[in-house]
Amino acid sequence: MISNEYYSQDIHGPFELYDIGDFDLEQGGTIPNCKLAYNTLGNLNSAKDNAILVTTWYSGTTKIMEQIYIGEDHALDPQKHFIILINQIGSGLSSSPHNSPAPYGMSNFPDVRIGDDVRAQHKLITEKFGIEKLALVFGASMGGQQVWEWAVRYPDMVQRIAPIAITAKNTPHAFIFADTLNEALISDPNWNGGNYKASSDVKVGLFRQARLWAVMGLNPEFYRQEYWRNMNFSSAEDFISGFLEAYYEPLDPNNLLCMAWKWQRGDASRNTGGNLQEALGRIRTKTLVMGFTGDMFVPQTDLEFEQKMIANSELRMIDTICGHFALFALEPEYMPQIDKNLEDLLSSSV
Amino acid sequence: MISNEYYSQDIHGPFELYDIGDFDLEQGGTIPNCKLAYNTLGNLNSAKDNAILVTTWYSGTTKIMEQIYIGEDHALDPQKHFIILINQIGSGLSSSPHNSPAPYGMSNFPDVRIGDDVRAQHKLITEKFGIEKLALVFGASMGGQQVWEWAVRYPDMVQRIAPIAITAKNTPHAFIFADTLNEALISDPNWNGGNYKASSDVKVGLFRQARLWAVMGLNPEFYRQEYWRNMNFSSAEDFISGFLEAYYEPLDPNNLLCMAWKWQRGDASRNTGGNLQEALGRIRTKTLVMGFTGDMFVPQTDLEFEQKMIANSELRMIDTICGHFALFALEPEYMPQIDKNLEDLLSSSV
Repeated sequence: MISNEYYSQDIHGPFELYDIGDFDLEQGGTIPNCKLAYNTLGNLNSAKDNAILVTTWYSGTTKIMEQIYIGEDHALDPQKHFIILINQIGSGLSSSPHNSPAPYGMSNFPDVRIGDDVRAQHKLITEKFGIEKLALVFGASMGGQQVWEWAVRYPDMVQRIAPIAITAKNTPHAFIFADTLNEALISDPNWNGGNYKASSDVKVGLFRQARLWAVMGLNPEFYRQEYWRNMNFSSAEDFISGFLEAYYEPLDPNNLLCMAWKWQRGDASRNTGGNLQEALGRIRTKTLVMGFTGDMFVPQTDLEFEQKMIANSELRMIDTICGHFALFALEPEYMPQIDKNLEDLLSSSV
Repeated sequence: MISNEYYSQDIHGPFELYDIGDFDLEQGGTIPNCKLAYNTLGNLNSAKDNAILVTTWYSGTTKIMEQIYIGEDHALDPQKHFIILINQIGSGLSSSPHNSPAPYGMSNFPDVRIGDDVRAQHKLITEKFGIEKLALVFGASMGGQQVWEWAVRYPDMVQRIAPIAITAKNTPHAFIFADTLNEALISDPNWNGGNYKASSDVKVGLFRQARLWAVMGLNPEFYRQEYWRNMNFSSAEDFISGFLEAYYEPLDPNNLLCMAWKWQRGDASRNTGGNLQEALGRIRTKTLVMGFTGDMFVPQTDLEFEQKMIANSELRMIDTICGHFALFALEPEYMPQIDKNLEDLLSSSV
């Protein structure tokens, strides 16, 4: 356990902690007094049918989801919906390597799976709020892996899902890419087997990871059109330093490794003995898959391959120049497309 | 200077060495007694108008060009053409960091530019063979940067060019990608400022680079369709280990850094004060640009952007599942497409 001011109420709050008790993990091992950091916006109606769950991506917390995707001017409007935002295990706000005491903390934190996250979220939602139906489960990238898992694991509880830029079963290419992200961290000369004293000790590795994201999170067209100018950066290098390195610098490397392990092995077909067709066939939920044009590691072909196996489903591509990092809403044209799609989905009968 | 059995006549021969003397570089500095390793196939006819120049890519030598692209069953047929294959400076066969004596060797090897390569090749071709016209200059990836440079620098000497999967001016995205390749090497704990005793000391870095190529050299579709099965590998991991790591393992890291520096800054518009339109406007050569579908860092849009500035030009996309590494001819459908395009080009009047 080490302190890291980045994962604080000041920066990511307000959030509450819900203790789900000692939590046994699919891969073996237990997180004692596992805590989920969550936040809610809006009010649960008396029918308890206006609840929307929002999950978090690799490296992100609920704060960025709230800032980008939620508000009176968006489809996810707290005036209409009761929005529950839950931080994934390993995110740095919920139980994570950096904030867990010995002997479970840091590099000894157990391996966590997407299924663990979703079981933990299910406990929070049913126990704390007594909610039996979710009008929508929404998440992007790794957050979308949790969305897929919800639909396959609890098909009767979810009415609509909207996973963005992610497949239900992680792809081999994305697995190999994530390996390079991990390698960027553990090759830091101060890595020390994951037992560094402060995340800043591993700054070289974090910056190295940021530069891999510069290649894979964006894409050639983003740089050719110098889209970073619209973000008030003076050069590609300035963008990488001022946006990407700045974003990754405060993060905890063990937290990132925990999330990456989970991301790499994300696979909703674990619920059906590895049969993806059967897993996706289980989904009765109204399903709107969204993808990003020019996404370097979640291309349209991979999304289509799965979407075609889902009965009540549709794939809509979001037109963007930013590739995977479109999810940061770097373009003014981004949220109008997302909102339109989510409005269509939320207004559809189930 | 260190010995490296990989860069030998046994493995890459037969090749000859041509000493162009002390060679002053664009970036400053001199390579004393700079040597170009080259090979020829076929015979120069009496009119000296059947010469074809073939260049080399990052990490590759003329041997692989010969094995893949040249032969009686290919458009580049030594029975018809006099084919001159020249290894780029830094390739490991021509003057390179690993084979240059102190004080010019290893990490002290001077920075080389694509323009230097092409000036050196020009000397070899005019001085040694007395050739004044090249029927075709052909190269892929970094080899294609030399092709572009030939067409802009010596427009009257080149009758046809066929650069594959490369732009005339390197893109910012490819520059950032190449940075990650360099970083993979110099982050090796045994890097020692580039003054290692044997390239195998830096095996960790070389393997790390191989894994970055696994992400960017191939693409998601290659892995989704498990195309590695057609190459007799048993898994994606087996492919990465048996093909990519095996390919990069014997290479010299300083040689790779020398080539990467050159690749990153490859820019035919250096001949026109940075004006790309003017540089490409200089090309009177019949130009056939080829690109690969699904290339992660040389997409069709970047190729089209430049090709449209060239008067007598055409862009043909090669249909492939292998992305950039299509250039290794991993698919049986690859060479027939290349050969057809080159035959069309070679049979066209100039």
